Amino acid sequence: MTSNTNTLERERGILIVLSGPSGVGKGTVCAALRNCSPDIVYSVSATTRAPRQGEVEGVNYFFKTREQFQQLIDTDEVLEWAEYVGNYYGTPRRFVEDTLRAGQDVILEIEVQGALKVKQKFPEGVFIFLLPPSLDELQNRIVTRGTETDEVIRSRMSVAVDEIRLMEHYDYAIINDRVETACSKIQSILAAEHCKKDRMYPKVIQWIGEVN
Amino acid sequence: MTSNTNTLERERGILIVLSGPSGVGKGTVCAALRNCSPDIVYSVSATTRAPRQGEVEGVNYFFKTREQFQQLIDTDEVLEWAEYVGNYYGTPRRFVEDTLRAGQDVILEIEVQGALKVKQKFPEGVFIFLLPPSLDELQNRIVTRGTETDEVIRSRMSVAVDEIRLMEHYDYAIINDRVETACSKIQSILAAEHCKKDRMYPKVIQWIGEVN
Repeated sequence: MTSNTNTLERERGILIVLSGPSGVGKGTVCAALRNCSPDIVYSVSATTRAPRQGEVEGVNYFFKTREQFQQLIDTDEVLEWAEYVGNYYGTPRRFVEDTLRAGQDVILEIEVQGALKVKQKFPEGVFIFLLPPSLDELQNRIVTRGTETDEVIRSRMSVAVDEIRLMEHYDYAIINDRVETACSKIQSILAAEHCKKDRMYPKVIQWIGEVN
Repeated sequence: MTSNTNTLERERGILIVLSGPSGVGKGTVCAALRNCSPDIVYSVSATTRAPRQGEVEGVNYFFKTREQFQQLIDTDEVLEWAEYVGNYYGTPRRFVEDTLRAGQDVILEIEVQGALKVKQKFPEGVFIFLLPPSLDELQNRIVTRGTETDEVIRSRMSVAVDEIRLMEHYDYAIINDRVETACSKIQSILAAEHCKKDRMYPKVIQWIGEVN
C-alpha cells in the first residue's frame, strides 16, 4: 500500500442548472454566487447575434454564424437552444464537458423550459429550482414598473405559477428570501453532491481492491 | 392570497445516521458536530445496564429493565438493538420520531451493522459513511498501542475493509481527513437534504393551489 494509490482524488466536476420562474431573481443569485464561490465556472452560451462593444469571445459568448450554430444543433453539440428576436442562443455541450472533465463545477442559469431540455440531454446534472419567498412577493417582483394592467399582471402570474409546477422535475428547491442564504444553500448542495456515495464508491472499491 | 398561507414553513426534521469502520473517528466527528451545530439533536440510546454516577435518564441513556427492553423489541419500538457484555443497547424509535416531528434534525452515531438495521426500519434517514483518508491512515488508527501482533492487525484491517464495502448501502461518503472538514460536509448534506424537491414539492403545490 502506498499513499499515492489508496487516497482518493477529486472527481469529475458537477453541472448545476439553476432555474426558476421569471422574476424570481436567478440572475441576482448567480451574480452573488460568482463572488462567494469563485471556483464555480459559469457556462458560456453560444449566440448568432453580433458581439457588442467590449464583449469577448469565449467569455461573454461564443459568437457563431447562423451556419455554424445550425451545425452545432445538427451534431447534438448544444444542450438546449432557442431563438429570440431572430438570433439563436444555446448552451454548447463541449464547454460544459471539458470543464467538468477538468474537475471543475459548472453553473448554468437558465429559464424553466431550457432547463428541462438540458435535463433530457444531461440527466446527471443537478437541477435546482429557485422559488420566491411567497406568491405575493413574486407578484411584487413581476409588477416592476407599476404601470401594468391587471390583465397583464394576472397573465404573468399565471405563467409564473405554471413554471413553478415544473419544479417537480428538479432535484432541489431553494427559497430566494435572501440572496446570501440562497447562495449558501447552493454551495451546500454542491458540497453534498460531491459526497454522494455513487460518486465515491467506484474509487473506494478500487482502493480496497488493492489490499486484497 | 395572504402571506400566512402562501409562505413555506419549515418541514419535519431529518434523521442523519453517521457510521463507518472501527477506528475512523465517528465519535470525534460527532463530538465536534455537537459544538458547531448545536441545533442537531443527538439520538439517546436505551440500555439495560445500570446508570453510572452522574448519568441522567433521557440525557445519557434511557435506562430500562430487561423486561422493558424486551417489550420495546417485541413492539418494534427500537430501530436497532444489540447485546454487549450481557446488556441490551438500542435506539428507541419514539425519541427519534418525536424529535423529527417537532422539526428538529437528529443524528445517530452507530457502527456499520447497526446502521444497516436502522436503514431497514427507517429508510427515509440520510445515511453517511465516514471514510479514513487512506487505508494506511486507518491502519495507524487501528494500531493504537503498538503492541498488537501482525496477525491481530491483519485481522482488524480485514474487518475494516469488509465494513468499508458496506458503504454501498449508504447515501453519502465523507473522508475524515480533518474533523472540521468532515463536520462542514455533514452540515452541507443536512442543508442540501432540506432543499430536496420531494420535501418542498407538496407544500408548494398546496401553496399554488390556493391561487387557482
